[in-house]
Amino acid sequence: MSYDNDNIFAKILRGEAPAFKVHEDAQTLAFMDLMPQVPGHTLVIPKYPAQDLFDVDAATLGDTIQVVQTVGAAVKQAFQAPGIMIAQLSGAAAGQTVFHIHFHILPRFEGLEFKLHARQVEAAEVLAAHAERIRSCLAQGQAGKPADSGTPGP
Amino acid sequence: MSYDNDNIFAKILRGEAPAFKVHEDAQTLAFMDLMPQVPGHTLVIPKYPAQDLFDVDAATLGDTIQVVQTVGAAVKQAFQAPGIMIAQLSGAAAGQTVFHIHFHILPRFEGLEFKLHARQVEAAEVLAAHAERIRSCLAQGQAGKPADSGTPGP
Repeated sequence: MSYDNDNIFAKILRGEAPAFKVHEDAQTLAFMDLMPQVPGHTLVIPKYPAQDLFDVDAATLGDTIQVVQTVGAAVKQAFQAPGIMIAQLSGAAAGQTVFHIHFHILPRFEGLEFKLHARQVEAAEVLAAHAERIRSCLAQGQAGKPADSGTPGP
Repeated sequence: MSYDNDNIFAKILRGEAPAFKVHEDAQTLAFMDLMPQVPGHTLVIPKYPAQDLFDVDAATLGDTIQVVQTVGAAVKQAFQAPGIMIAQLSGAAAGQTVFHIHFHILPRFEGLEFKLHARQVEAAEVLAAHAERIRSCLAQGQAGKPADSGTPGP
């Protein structure tokens, strides 16, 4: 299977589909999952058109995981999450539904189980507010300011 | 919380605890999870003593994810898995039980659900055979390059 230029993330990258963005640089984009498994569920993708983990060069992968780390820290702070799970699903059998490589950032709380399926589209105003909360934490981090704004969790 | 030098992965890195290794280089180690969620469940860790995703420098993280990609491709081939899931759990609330940063490589098959808990220790001969299968695929991938000796664990 070759890369499909009409997948939804390709459309987001071309500006043909909307996204609640939290970070963008020359190589990478981070935005809210439209069907969050938990509040704060964020995706990080390289701009390079790769299908999955096995379709991407080492430099691009390195850039992407560094953004996962930075945005992950902001998500952790923004949602006051004691834990963060990173998931990367390669192949339909692994649960991949959009065939542009992406890393999931998932806030985790003690005792909160979640499914990797059966999701629903979240309201736009909720996603917009969540994106703003994460961007705010990223901006603080980039300004070298101490964490812990005290923003309440979901 | 600071890094605990007596965690089991630190002991494996010091040679004080056994492991079924599939890859080792100057910065990184890959070995079989002792309590696999599915057959072929493999872990990749940096040798650098970091607790989680937010405790590791960018260069180390980049080295680690590249080994995840390489070993992940070998696991996929070795277990003829149509899908691969990568998971990185940071914090007890996310399910982290060993506080040395590690990436899980999990073969996935259509319709096969798995739990992230309630695991049992696998028989040593099974793990040894699985490690050998992955090393064999890595060696094929590295044809022409000096092969990793990949000494099996006890």
